[in-house]
Amino acid sequence: MLINRKEIYIEFGDCDPGGIVYFPRYLEYGDACTNALFARAGLHKAQMVKTYGIAGIPMVESRARFLVPSQFGDTLLVESCIAEWGRSSFSVHHKLFKDGVLAVELFEKRVWVARTAESAEGPVRFKGQIIPQEVKDKFSGKSHTGRK
Amino acid sequence: MLINRKEIYIEFGDCDPGGIVYFPRYLEYGDACTNALFARAGLHKAQMVKTYGIAGIPMVESRARFLVPSQFGDTLLVESCIAEWGRSSFSVHHKLFKDGVLAVELFEKRVWVARTAESAEGPVRFKGQIIPQEVKDKFSGKSHTGRK
Amino acid sequence: MLINRKEIYIEFGDCDPGGIVYFPRYLEYGDACTNALFARAGLHKAQMVKTYGIAGIPMVESRARFLVPSQFGDTLLVESCIAEWGRSSFSVHHKLFKDGVLAVELFEKRVWVARTAESAEGPVRFKGQIIPQEVKDKFSGKSHTGRK
Amino acid sequence: MLINRKEIYIEFGDCDPGGIVYFPRYLEYGDACTNALFARAGLHKAQMVKTYGIAGIPMVESRARFLVPSQFGDTLLVESCIAEWGRSSFSVHHKLFKDGVLAVELFEKRVWVARTAESAEGPVRFKGQIIPQEVKDKFSGKSHTGRK
Repeated sequence: MLINRKEIYIEFGDCDPGGIVYFPRYLEYGDACTNALFARAGLHKAQMVKTYGIAGIPMVESRARFLVPSQFGDTLLVESCIAEWGRSSFSVHHKLFKDGVLAVELFEKRVWVARTAESAEGPVRFKGQIIPQEVKDKFSGKSHTGRK
Repeated sequence: MLINRKEIYIEFGDCDPGGIVYFPRYLEYGDACTNALFARAGLHKAQMVKTYGIAGIPMVESRARFLVPSQFGDTLLVESCIAEWGRSSFSVHHKLFKDGVLAVELFEKRVWVARTAESAEGPVRFKGQIIPQEVKDKFSGKSHTGRK
Repeated sequence: MLINRKEIYIEFGDCDPGGIVYFPRYLEYGDACTNALFARAGLHKAQMVKTYGIAGIPMVESRARFLVPSQFGDTLLVESCIAEWGRSSFSVHHKLFKDGVLAVELFEKRVWVARTAESAEGPVRFKGQIIPQEVKDKFSGKSHTGRK
Repeated sequence: MLINRKEIYIEFGDCDPGGIVYFPRYLEYGDACTNALFARAGLHKAQMVKTYGIAGIPMVESRARFLVPSQFGDTLLVESCIAEWGRSSFSVHHKLFKDGVLAVELFEKRVWVARTAESAEGPVRFKGQIIPQEVKDKFSGKSHTGRK
């Protein structure tokens, strides 16, 4: 199973008046780490969207546990993997470590979607598509480490 | 039980290259709605923190369901309430409606904390405190509506 | 000359560890106020882009003066107007008042652009277009006030 | 004169519905690069604030020129230096290059401030302080390169 590791440096602007990371930023980190995980699997988002004719992999559910606060100047090490594949959805699991201690845990459920073509003028609507087996196969390799 | 209603207007800058709200923004909306719920209960955050000698009400768990995407120019109506009170923690439930349809649901578990005083130089650490009954009582009123 | 007035409520998440608005947020407020100014003139961005076949009104220059810091819970009143029209560019001026005092001043130079069609795969490139006189005329009315 | 070089990777969440970096993000990048420049000079912000008894180095003026749009997946190389030292203020100049081409230029005027102590309850107010010569001297070295 492919695990991607990515370092996140906490910037001043990511922190709130309490001096700790403003919690929605963690979900931004997680999103960046999911994109990095896919890139590590050879699936750069911009290219992947074209290759498979999808609109993207939007989030349908998210869960987070905030265990240890982090501050400006901290560096978090994030380990990301696909926790589960469904037919048209999948789950991503991120573990954010601070000095070796699990600080935040994120779970994302995302869907492999096309944009429905009712009308270009109408509101954006998505429809789940079957995830190609070759996409899933790209994540079955062994751990790749590095900055991405 | 106190329910606060707040309108959120989706700005251009809240949306991603897919043209829909970038999902971490929803957690920012939820945070603003929790602060508005407390303000509606007479507990303005800046004042509350001083009155009760706490460091804040940081998030320890969050859960979100993204059901219908929203776009620049949409207005969401958010209904917020305290779903459950614990001894030193509590849960907030936000329902975000778009044109009367439930579009996003957010659950927040927060803790009533003091900052531990090991040292001013050290990393930020929090410790749960017992939530005063008078705080809980302020949310037992009936529905208040308005823009806050 | 059309002047739009819009209130901005400072949220907790807009503030930095110093307890004041993180300065890039002011440029987000300005962007929202420019969109509100155009909407007040009858030019809702999403519709305007379709009507005139443009890609948008991207920023090419920005200038800001930060005079008085603001904090969570403050409400700013923003006055926005078109300061100058060029052939394919224009300047927007925002004055952000806190309790009647000028707190921040923002200047935006934006261009009325089409997306160049070299290739759908290539990087995004824009090309200035002549701003229609009817667009400019919509801003010559008198002051409109309200929340938008 | 000390010049710091820092790479910025453009994340999906930094981009707007037009598919390009949402311009206020560039000011966040600049803020991160100013902090990295100071860190390169041996002045880590959190430590510097304590050592010199200041509240920070808030922005009083900012200017930006947006020349070439960037997109998700691009990497910008940022060169940052102190352009000018005043008695209690200083200017930072950032040049953001994309594939060797100047894409964005940022100018920041910041002040070396203490927090005025009128009252802990009142609004945040800052007062400029004389910048110590030893601080200025730390930036007179030659170019340091690296990831920070």
